[in-house]
Amino acid sequence: MAKVKKQPRPKAETPKGFRDYFGHEVTERQEMLRQIAEVYSHYGFDALETSAVETVEALGKFLPDVDRPNEGVFGWEEDDSGWVALRYDMTAPLARVYAQFRNDLPTPYRRYAMGPVWRNEKPGPGRFRQFYQCDADTVGAPSVAADAEICAMLSDTLERVGIPRGDYIVRINNRKVLNGVMEVAGVLDPSDETKFEAERGIVLRAIDKLDRLGEDGVRALLGEGRKDESGDFTKGAGLADAQADVVMGFMDARRDIGAETLARLRELVGESKIGSEGVDELEEIATLLDAQGYGPDRIIVDPSVVRGLGYYTGPVYEAELTFEIFDEKGRKRQFGSVAGGGRYDDLVKRFTGQAVPATGVSIGVDRLLAALRAKGRIGQDSARGPVVVTVMDKARMADYQLMVRELREAGIRAEVYLGNPKNFGNQLKYADKRNSPVAVIEGGDEAERGVIQIKDLILGAKIAEEATLEEWKDRPSQYEVARGDLVAKVREILDLYK
Amino acid sequence: MAKVKKQPRPKAETPKGFRDYFGHEVTERQEMLRQIAEVYSHYGFDALETSAVETVEALGKFLPDVDRPNEGVFGWEEDDSGWVALRYDMTAPLARVYAQFRNDLPTPYRRYAMGPVWRNEKPGPGRFRQFYQCDADTVGAPSVAADAEICAMLSDTLERVGIPRGDYIVRINNRKVLNGVMEVAGVLDPSDETKFEAERGIVLRAIDKLDRLGEDGVRALLGEGRKDESGDFTKGAGLADAQADVVMGFMDARRDIGAETLARLRELVGESKIGSEGVDELEEIATLLDAQGYGPDRIIVDPSVVRGLGYYTGPVYEAELTFEIFDEKGRKRQFGSVAGGGRYDDLVKRFTGQAVPATGVSIGVDRLLAALRAKGRIGQDSARGPVVVTVMDKARMADYQLMVRELREAGIRAEVYLGNPKNFGNQLKYADKRNSPVAVIEGGDEAERGVIQIKDLILGAKIAEEATLEEWKDRPSQYEVARGDLVAKVREILDLYK
Repeated sequence: MAKVKKQPRPKAETPKGFRDYFGHEVTERQEMLRQIAEVYSHYGFDALETSAVETVEALGKFLPDVDRPNEGVFGWEEDDSGWVALRYDMTAPLARVYAQFRNDLPTPYRRYAMGPVWRNEKPGPGRFRQFYQCDADTVGAPSVAADAEICAMLSDTLERVGIPRGDYIVRINNRKVLNGVMEVAGVLDPSDETKFEAERGIVLRAIDKLDRLGEDGVRALLGEGRKDESGDFTKGAGLADAQADVVMGFMDARRDIGAETLARLRELVGESKIGSEGVDELEEIATLLDAQGYGPDRIIVDPSVVRGLGYYTGPVYEAELTFEIFDEKGRKRQFGSVAGGGRYDDLVKRFTGQAVPATGVSIGVDRLLAALRAKGRIGQDSARGPVVVTVMDKARMADYQLMVRELREAGIRAEVYLGNPKNFGNQLKYADKRNSPVAVIEGGDEAERGVIQIKDLILGAKIAEEATLEEWKDRPSQYEVARGDLVAKVREILDLYK
Repeated sequence: MAKVKKQPRPKAETPKGFRDYFGHEVTERQEMLRQIAEVYSHYGFDALETSAVETVEALGKFLPDVDRPNEGVFGWEEDDSGWVALRYDMTAPLARVYAQFRNDLPTPYRRYAMGPVWRNEKPGPGRFRQFYQCDADTVGAPSVAADAEICAMLSDTLERVGIPRGDYIVRINNRKVLNGVMEVAGVLDPSDETKFEAERGIVLRAIDKLDRLGEDGVRALLGEGRKDESGDFTKGAGLADAQADVVMGFMDARRDIGAETLARLRELVGESKIGSEGVDELEEIATLLDAQGYGPDRIIVDPSVVRGLGYYTGPVYEAELTFEIFDEKGRKRQFGSVAGGGRYDDLVKRFTGQAVPATGVSIGVDRLLAALRAKGRIGQDSARGPVVVTVMDKARMADYQLMVRELREAGIRAEVYLGNPKNFGNQLKYADKRNSPVAVIEGGDEAERGVIQIKDLILGAKIAEEATLEEWKDRPSQYEVARGDLVAKVREILDLYK
């Protein structure tokens, strides 16, 4: 801990790229994680909480994301453990745990993990160095029934947290099918996988840019190359037209009916062994999901899903929210992807030398929360503060405490004002800052008469904003009730805003 | 990220002093945190989740615990933020947040925080470098009504998580009373607080050792000093007998009736201004708690509570479990302290220059869980695995998936076996490792006849352990039922073990 500059006063700031979460931001996320854990657990997945710190050796030096291989971690050196770092995802620790405890864990091992991960990336707007991941993986199950199960679970999970059917879609693809298509297009040689690697890289990146460049742009990249608006030239994969047709056909293979998509893919992969295997697997997944009633309104086979394909070895899947929201500039846009995953086989092998099949999904909890907030589906109740019992007479604090006790025992969130009670206006300002729905007032006069004043602060705020003087008179937002009616009257007001 | 040694295979291990938590260890803690948050929230406390990483400048270089001032943190240097470290508690980040957002936060600010903290200490048995803290603090409330509120909340919280009244006690003391006693004993000079500091230090440490050394040992340390069994001599505070009497009287001041304890303390602090103030505060707290019905069966004034006194400036409190448990060597012992806290005033001042009064409690969640497990009050249900539907015929996977779906829709945790189904024995071993209560079996024969086999694995295990051959025959643990009765029969078995 060297080099701490001497300063008269330390700065009250988080390190760059970190932030704090307040009140309902925390509780809404907790509630969502609880709902997700409930679904995962019902599917037989077991909780796992690994340490936040791992040895760099166990973690691996780089993130597995091929698009950003140099994404950093937060690491430091310890005398007794060597170089250690904060975990950057939940998958690397899972591989370590499975290798370490494989004799004690059941096989297959279904586990879920939720918690913060840390990435030493350049921070940007809405992009933080600490964020939540919420993963479910099945380790040691070679059957694609495990992939189907996770897709079904993903669908159930989205509905559990409040995304209604029709507002989301789970898309499934298979890395093997893409390999088959590459083989047919002549950019993959099964007898020498290193051949054409550069070309395949260009093809992958081109497919990934379909949204942005459109079909013509992608086709140019598959061929000789493409000049962008600024005049810069990007070298293409050098595919002949017939080869490019195969790749373009793959991206365009989705049909309205799943069986037709599969038939089209089978055409495209032709004689490719790996390609046929991929289509067979997709078919098996589709059959299993169909039998359980997951129709195309929830889960579809969609060859245009290429997300993270470099990392996966078989089925890949992704969940997208299909409704539109307004962005910060007021423009309509699709909300987009909130979860993704797939099958990967080599993570445990690093430790044990044995390949262990695994498949899993990661849900972007913060994105899901943002979606639900954008649709107004959460944040109404959870942002509401407690009932505030004001203090008119410091000597009668015990009486005020008794009032909050009664309210709490009735299940109502309540507190006594504990600041300096001299200025009553400050107490109401405090209640306002707390977003309190109700304030309770009992001065000496009220105490003598056995009554209390109950202020409906929500109505009060509304009247202050909207009402004319006439209306103000007609719609009182303060009620005098008997002391014994405290709980009943407060509940009556709270019920108005449920 | 330099100096990573090249090795053929990385070691699958956590760094020294860290561990993983599996299954019910995770879910039981989550459930306890949820219950605690529920109580805290009802009291009007708001959730706060700060980043795990803080600047060393904001954190302060040392832990506030006077007994271990050199306790280390995990820190490293960042290009854009300078030296940063993982938080070592929840209080330092609270001070930083309050200083940073004081214009936006309500005053008083009641907040709770739950999550892991990290300490770079020597690991030992049961002592880890990452563990949970669960704090509630009120910042900006000078009134001891805030301390009383936290003591009441602590009592409610313990009962909410499953510690019945009578199995715990919350003890309250006041640092000011101790200072008053020191003044009377002649080891505190209000006009020069630096005077007698060494003597006061010895007195504090002596009081803290009452449990271990007994009255005679403490008295020796208050006087000339003490020779221990090994012959080593510890220098005493050099108090005359009359002075030592005052201090000993303080530790012994607890009476059966709270009012008598307070009267005795008032005697002891005599003319000391700070001492009288301390007794007044204790009296105010006692009155407030009394009015709400918190009697001596839940909360008492107890002058022998000295925990962490060096850090606090006013009331201090501690919750202790009073029941006995058996330790790892089979010896009966008191479970002891599970929560503690008090009033502190200088943490925010570091940042803003203004003293802000604050009081708060920290609950040792892992110790509370250990206590509940030791009493057998949790761990029965939460350790139970899912119902396992076995796979007799791989081609009928869709049917098996349908069975788990039916079970899940009925609220029952269930899964299909997804390993290699060839060896049926492995499937039952798997169910055993999962701690499954029930296995479902449907072979080709059963499918034809429209029935399924349901195995009660809990009863099965019991029979295998205890039963004679006769009993084995009389108590079948496997039932053949119609396929349509799957859910009903499984529920019937699960209900047996509720």
